[in-house]
Amino acid sequence: MIDKIYNHSFKLKELKSFLLKNFISIKTSIPLNETIYGIGSLNFANKNQLTFYNNSKYYKYLSQTNAKGCFITKNNSELLPKNCLPIIVDDPYIAYAYSSNFFSSNIISNGKIDKNTKIHKESKLGKNVQINNFSVIEKDTFISNDSIILDNVKIGPNVKIGKKTIIMSNCVISNSDIGDNCIIQSGSIIGGKGFGFTPKSKIEIKHVGNVIIGNNVDIGSNCTIDRAAIDSTIIEDNVRIDNLVQISHNVCIGKNSIIAAQTGIAGSTIIGSNCIMGGQVGIAGHLKIGKNVTIAAKSGVTKNIHDNKTVAGFPAIDINLWKKNIIQQFKKIK
Amino acid sequence: MIDKIYNHSFKLKELKSFLLKNFISIKTSIPLNETIYGIGSLNFANKNQLTFYNNSKYYKYLSQTNAKGCFITKNNSELLPKNCLPIIVDDPYIAYAYSSNFFSSNIISNGKIDKNTKIHKESKLGKNVQINNFSVIEKDTFISNDSIILDNVKIGPNVKIGKKTIIMSNCVISNSDIGDNCIIQSGSIIGGKGFGFTPKSKIEIKHVGNVIIGNNVDIGSNCTIDRAAIDSTIIEDNVRIDNLVQISHNVCIGKNSIIAAQTGIAGSTIIGSNCIMGGQVGIAGHLKIGKNVTIAAKSGVTKNIHDNKTVAGFPAIDINLWKKNIIQQFKKIK
Amino acid sequence: MIDKIYNHSFKLKELKSFLLKNFISIKTSIPLNETIYGIGSLNFANKNQLTFYNNSKYYKYLSQTNAKGCFITKNNSELLPKNCLPIIVDDPYIAYAYSSNFFSSNIISNGKIDKNTKIHKESKLGKNVQINNFSVIEKDTFISNDSIILDNVKIGPNVKIGKKTIIMSNCVISNSDIGDNCIIQSGSIIGGKGFGFTPKSKIEIKHVGNVIIGNNVDIGSNCTIDRAAIDSTIIEDNVRIDNLVQISHNVCIGKNSIIAAQTGIAGSTIIGSNCIMGGQVGIAGHLKIGKNVTIAAKSGVTKNIHDNKTVAGFPAIDINLWKKNIIQQFKKIK
Repeated sequence: MIDKIYNHSFKLKELKSFLLKNFISIKTSIPLNETIYGIGSLNFANKNQLTFYNNSKYYKYLSQTNAKGCFITKNNSELLPKNCLPIIVDDPYIAYAYSSNFFSSNIISNGKIDKNTKIHKESKLGKNVQINNFSVIEKDTFISNDSIILDNVKIGPNVKIGKKTIIMSNCVISNSDIGDNCIIQSGSIIGGKGFGFTPKSKIEIKHVGNVIIGNNVDIGSNCTIDRAAIDSTIIEDNVRIDNLVQISHNVCIGKNSIIAAQTGIAGSTIIGSNCIMGGQVGIAGHLKIGKNVTIAAKSGVTKNIHDNKTVAGFPAIDINLWKKNIIQQFKKIK
Repeated sequence: MIDKIYNHSFKLKELKSFLLKNFISIKTSIPLNETIYGIGSLNFANKNQLTFYNNSKYYKYLSQTNAKGCFITKNNSELLPKNCLPIIVDDPYIAYAYSSNFFSSNIISNGKIDKNTKIHKESKLGKNVQINNFSVIEKDTFISNDSIILDNVKIGPNVKIGKKTIIMSNCVISNSDIGDNCIIQSGSIIGGKGFGFTPKSKIEIKHVGNVIIGNNVDIGSNCTIDRAAIDSTIIEDNVRIDNLVQISHNVCIGKNSIIAAQTGIAGSTIIGSNCIMGGQVGIAGHLKIGKNVTIAAKSGVTKNIHDNKTVAGFPAIDINLWKKNIIQQFKKIK
Repeated sequence: MIDKIYNHSFKLKELKSFLLKNFISIKTSIPLNETIYGIGSLNFANKNQLTFYNNSKYYKYLSQTNAKGCFITKNNSELLPKNCLPIIVDDPYIAYAYSSNFFSSNIISNGKIDKNTKIHKESKLGKNVQINNFSVIEKDTFISNDSIILDNVKIGPNVKIGKKTIIMSNCVISNSDIGDNCIIQSGSIIGGKGFGFTPKSKIEIKHVGNVIIGNNVDIGSNCTIDRAAIDSTIIEDNVRIDNLVQISHNVCIGKNSIIAAQTGIAGSTIIGSNCIMGGQVGIAGHLKIGKNVTIAAKSGVTKNIHDNKTVAGFPAIDINLWKKNIIQQFKKIK
């Protein structure tokens, strides 16, 4: 019952043509009218599915796969069993990645606004917007053309959502300006009140800023992204954020950066473009992290980091120094 | 107002008979017709409640308890004040544990489907299913007999739920096959899109797999369990998962394993049966953790772990080596 | 579109009088009838907004600010450009903090109960309670005067909510007694079943206690606070909890304590008053943490801590020893 895989069948020629558009060419002739039903692993794919082989770790499954066909390099193609058609490509993993896009349904607005919704008369909806059951659109909210609001969502006040953006179920979004082609996955809270008070006298600082999210941003499930104290919390274009991530008030994440699950970034820290963070990373507040920085999982960052650095540990240091330190410690205790 | 405790009274003979069915025998005669209203701690139980004493840490409260009766071993029974009836058992903690089950209401389906719900005509409901207010059941969904869907829940598409399973409020479940007698606590997101792209070229990998959850699985509040890229993310029978836990795509958790709060497991890692993880553990992707492995809280696991090992630290190592290392470090700095 | 900032204008005399009530005096004469539209940073404030200067890190923006006026000390006031009115105060940061309260709207109940709600006839509502769309109030629930329940919320059973308390969207609250003037931010789950079973035989311990939250408590988004096994999980007055925090069953947090994001506290641990915890802290179960204790971010606390201590690291130790240890390690590897 999973997506198109079990609901729809495709001809191999359709897949071939989709891959060609993405500059993946199949090196051998294949039976173009053969029907396929999706893709699985070497070990689990059934006789109607395709599979792929790109990692010698899975070598043991190669000769036993039940798959109908397998993306594989020419060198390895002779290892396949007779039942499995070799589909020879330069990079089987890339061929699989594009195929996953072929087999997956794109979610497209049905243009319907369910009657069990509450939409404030001072909100504005573009053309062909879909709003599902039990969702609430507050005043001072604008949702652009072709966007989708799934079920039990609260949007507003003071929200602007771009085109073809999808807000999944049970999200709560306020005081935010979200771009085009974004996906906010279920249960995420965007634009909530940040955590602020003066250090000594503990006077509450009321947060009156907002959140600005660029285009093509993907935010995971049950994340929390707080509005700024003043000005904006900013997530630039093409950023990808995994589940249960905390982005505090006034943080800025540079374009194309990738943040894995359960990472937290404290207030007012600026992250450059093309950074990568593993899971459970913590970054202190008011820091400046350069471009192209990689932060290993579980690191705790307490200082600014220069461009192009890779760090690890707590407090986070150059990853090679960190490894050296670990090795020295282990030597002594053995 | 807490459960049966304040709403209902019981006779001691009812509790005695419940305990006997669970092979707990009370060693002395007790006034069987005495009425009780629940269970509390030595310090806080009122004169209508029972209590228990199993830990010398709480010795100071023993002589002052207001409880009507106390599960206690024979040796300690003379320390109780006059107002408190000694209920002598071999293991007071076990007696308490079973009593908590006696006093707690079992949640049983009322068989009602609230009219403020949206149920797709292409979904199937078994007998005696309860669906509460403002919940949405999408197409290609099957909910089996006696299961309960609480409020503001979104189920589907592509979901199968077994018998007597409870989905608590504000959960979002898609692309998942959940077994019998499970509890998914409030706010958890199951079957969301995983976090995937090819490492270098960052082509998005669309996730087309699902989540399979066995029988008697208990999942905490605000957890996130992602669907597989291909094949399935698997949680086997009797697994217990605490709150705010992240299970990435294609992870497999072996039966009877226990995972404490805020732990995260990265993609494609396989965990054996009967494993125990403390809170805030992180496990890297593509690893194999054996059976009966214990991972101390806050550990970061970066390598495969053999059966029956106990590890701690980051990177996680044998817990005894870890302790040795800590002691050596502390010696030097004092 | 952000709060009053863009929706309403104010006269400088209104702000001056608000600050005076909070014992902040402006040392120079200002044009009292000048209109202002909110507050921004030196770098981003527009010509209708105020700003403030309190940190030499932002010196470079000082001479270029577009703001209409700036809270500043007398010494620095000559550095401002001509377009920007110096508003001289003793502590510009404190003046900003109070101003943020001036500019931010207070959320006040509108006294309306939306018709798209489900309110059990055995619940009780005080005067002027606001309940928004698609929220569900279960039986044995009491909501006091002037409190607000936003959208898609589930309250009950066995819940008491005090006066002027705000429960934001998509929260789930059961078995809890919450005080006056609290804010529970969106997506938090309060009173869920704790994680409990006997260590060896793994008999499930059913949790029959509750959660007690004092007055003026602020809880962030997507937090989880579990009900007690027996007795109560307690959050005392004036506690502030950030996002994605896990508070386990039977924990007690002393008054005025502050807990940053993604921290987790295991079962039955008692925290004193006026404690401060950084983000991603983990505290083991059954510990006693004294008063005025500060725990640095990412620490793992495994032992009791005395009053007034500051600790860091894992296992957490005195912060000065921890720093010494880090410096020694770094010396060796360089």
